[in-house]
Amino acid sequence: MEDKKEKIKPELPGGFRDLLPADAIAFQSVLDRIRRVYESFGYSPLFTPAMERVEVLTGGAEDFEKSLFYARIRKGAEDKNDQAVNEGEVFGLRFDHTVALARVMAANSDLSKPFKRYAIGPVWRGERPQAGRYREFWQADFDIIGSDSTLADVEVVQIMQAVLAELGLRRFLIRFNTRKVLNGLAEVVGAADRAKHVCRSIDKMDKLGLERVLAELKDGEAALNDEQAGRIGEFLKIKALDNDETLRQLEGFIAGKGETALAGLAELKNMVSALRELGVPEENWRVDLSIARGLDYYTGPVFETVLLDKPELGSIFSGGRFNDLVRRFVEADIPGVGASVGVSRLMIALKEFGLLPDKKNVTEVLVVPVFDPALEVKAAAVAARLRAGGLNADLYRSSGKEKSTPRGGVGFASREGIPYVLIIGPDEAAQGAVLFKDMKAGEQFPLAIEDCLKKIKTGLGR
Amino acid sequence: MEDKKEKIKPELPGGFRDLLPADAIAFQSVLDRIRRVYESFGYSPLFTPAMERVEVLTGGAEDFEKSLFYARIRKGAEDKNDQAVNEGEVFGLRFDHTVALARVMAANSDLSKPFKRYAIGPVWRGERPQAGRYREFWQADFDIIGSDSTLADVEVVQIMQAVLAELGLRRFLIRFNTRKVLNGLAEVVGAADRAKHVCRSIDKMDKLGLERVLAELKDGEAALNDEQAGRIGEFLKIKALDNDETLRQLEGFIAGKGETALAGLAELKNMVSALRELGVPEENWRVDLSIARGLDYYTGPVFETVLLDKPELGSIFSGGRFNDLVRRFVEADIPGVGASVGVSRLMIALKEFGLLPDKKNVTEVLVVPVFDPALEVKAAAVAARLRAGGLNADLYRSSGKEKSTPRGGVGFASREGIPYVLIIGPDEAAQGAVLFKDMKAGEQFPLAIEDCLKKIKTGLGR
Repeated sequence: MEDKKEKIKPELPGGFRDLLPADAIAFQSVLDRIRRVYESFGYSPLFTPAMERVEVLTGGAEDFEKSLFYARIRKGAEDKNDQAVNEGEVFGLRFDHTVALARVMAANSDLSKPFKRYAIGPVWRGERPQAGRYREFWQADFDIIGSDSTLADVEVVQIMQAVLAELGLRRFLIRFNTRKVLNGLAEVVGAADRAKHVCRSIDKMDKLGLERVLAELKDGEAALNDEQAGRIGEFLKIKALDNDETLRQLEGFIAGKGETALAGLAELKNMVSALRELGVPEENWRVDLSIARGLDYYTGPVFETVLLDKPELGSIFSGGRFNDLVRRFVEADIPGVGASVGVSRLMIALKEFGLLPDKKNVTEVLVVPVFDPALEVKAAAVAARLRAGGLNADLYRSSGKEKSTPRGGVGFASREGIPYVLIIGPDEAAQGAVLFKDMKAGEQFPLAIEDCLKKIKTGLGR
Repeated sequence: MEDKKEKIKPELPGGFRDLLPADAIAFQSVLDRIRRVYESFGYSPLFTPAMERVEVLTGGAEDFEKSLFYARIRKGAEDKNDQAVNEGEVFGLRFDHTVALARVMAANSDLSKPFKRYAIGPVWRGERPQAGRYREFWQADFDIIGSDSTLADVEVVQIMQAVLAELGLRRFLIRFNTRKVLNGLAEVVGAADRAKHVCRSIDKMDKLGLERVLAELKDGEAALNDEQAGRIGEFLKIKALDNDETLRQLEGFIAGKGETALAGLAELKNMVSALRELGVPEENWRVDLSIARGLDYYTGPVFETVLLDKPELGSIFSGGRFNDLVRRFVEADIPGVGASVGVSRLMIALKEFGLLPDKKNVTEVLVVPVFDPALEVKAAAVAARLRAGGLNADLYRSSGKEKSTPRGGVGFASREGIPYVLIIGPDEAAQGAVLFKDMKAGEQFPLAIEDCLKKIKTGLGR
């Protein structure tokens, strides 16, 4: 048998981790609340597999291939019928939820549009594991496909705000811009053909600062001259705390030149005005012209979110409009906009801010039979009644064979943070009662079984 | 840009599939209900990664290696710092939730026991894809670790029954036995040293039938003589529809000989009596001495569940007691018992029986602005109010630029199965009202905005 073999170390590979119940309960509650907000805005779930064909994932681009996890069956592996399975076939593990969405939209052109879906689940990236960086982490995405209205863009901000508020956060800032302004900017300074490189350099503002970004704009692929870089410098200095002032300065900067920039200005104005009319708290969002988002596929508004008390986490909720979503697969004009919250990373902040439920166990009431083993089944029946009434009820099982005393069950409830304990001994059983123990209040008293349900529900605020 | 490249086929690899919203909503609702039942019994979530070290997964056993998915980063892949990552390191994708549970228990000896956890998620097996067999499928497991009480075994049956009843199933049968009877049987016929092989042959009863099982017992590794096989044949004919009759016949068969078999008999008797006392409907469970479960690691009760109207699916909810759980990793006596429902497979039956929610969209009410684009923001504000009241509310966005008419939104609601539509045109907006449309009843009438929430909640039965 196995116990004679050499033991295997019960270890995880680097970059992976377990969530034991205390963390798992908190994590699950965060996922549930995110999902509830997404659904309240009319987003439906979509499940796609963990694995995809490699070219679907990478689109042939080398940079993705580098951090992809490849999955395959052992070469020569055989199934029960002794036929070769999957020989040489190699799949990739998803590194985000967007590629699968694009594939689904391309493969199912009959889906009603606007198509609003969310996807919550782990993604995998084969990066070097380091503090706070995992090879498996969870993302929760929502996207509207098939609408290019400004109200769809505004809805993204509404949802980001609603999710973070639902999680108890107050001091966060959703910063947004539009690619039209950035592309128009290249146009305004006379470098329309290098708009992509201008964007990429501006995206580094947070990391490099103004001086180094300007240097890169001149020396890098954007190859701007001094005057062009100087104009971009003026633009990047527009950083008013007040949205109207930002828009006013942007308007002055554009000064009526450049169609794309003007379209971008109008887009931002419309978003600001709609967000105000919808009452989305203005302390939570701001037009920020330095937001670029490095990815090439964005075409309109782009969003990032910073936690004001933990800015070092970077953007924890990001997204944008991508109107070329499905072109990897089919030639079709299917606009989309959405955002993704990095749940695993967000958990770090929620934990630090004390915004997570502090529970090691989902049990709300523990029923503890004592002194007589024959009472175990009676106690189990009491637990079943409590469950039928809507409570999470567990039956305490002493591990030993000796007669159980209240101490074992009460100690367990105390260690696990279970708020209520019902003790059933021979006396209580004879009277159809229990010894009711409120762990938090530290009080206990006899109570008829039929009164326990209501008492506990009241105590739990239900 | 991408549109000039050759297009990539938007296809999944064989053995994988998407769940589009209609299926995803149904699937999510099944997962939620399973989780709710598990939690009501005091099981907390535990999250473990998709990938594990290969030897953790296989324990070195060759048969597992054959159907394992291996995951690795491309050899020579490099991270941003140009350092080799993960070169040569190969992981395996989990093929069940039990191995990870064992690893967690071995690595965290400080976890309070009994430790009750559930795990719901996809698992991967590199089998040859065929109808109804997928390479990715979902399992929902629950296990109690650290208790060897009969009431823990009974709780497994309670939960299996509660889950299936919660999903709307009535005609199912949880069949159980105990390995002690089977091991004792080998003892009773004088083949205690070949108990494992006797079990494995008996496990094939459903597939092979009595005659072929008896032949295998003689000609196979169990190597029984005619008399021994004949005795086992007598045992296997014990198949009363009535639990008391089964136990009576078993008692007669054992006839006081064989300690292990007698312990098994006592175990079954205790389970039957506790299940009755707890009121678990007896039409849903039955002692069935032909249940063996092939896996070697079971040591006590074993469970299988058949859907009486779809027996060809095989067991959709199975489990058992495994008291050697952690011995792959540490030498410790940590008993466990639990079961796992094959959710992906169960969905086939639930769909066929009409037990799944029939929704293509989670939206409960669609707000449709018409005739004047300026009404869009007003409509969005109405949707926000409905959300604040607890409804899933969506704003209809016409795809074109032309003035929208009610037809677009109503058509969308009809295609998507959205039950309520609120139409807001210039007249309605001026009066603080909407045109309220109940899609099912086919009626519509003007209604003040503040009355919509209550009306819809009543209609939805909330």
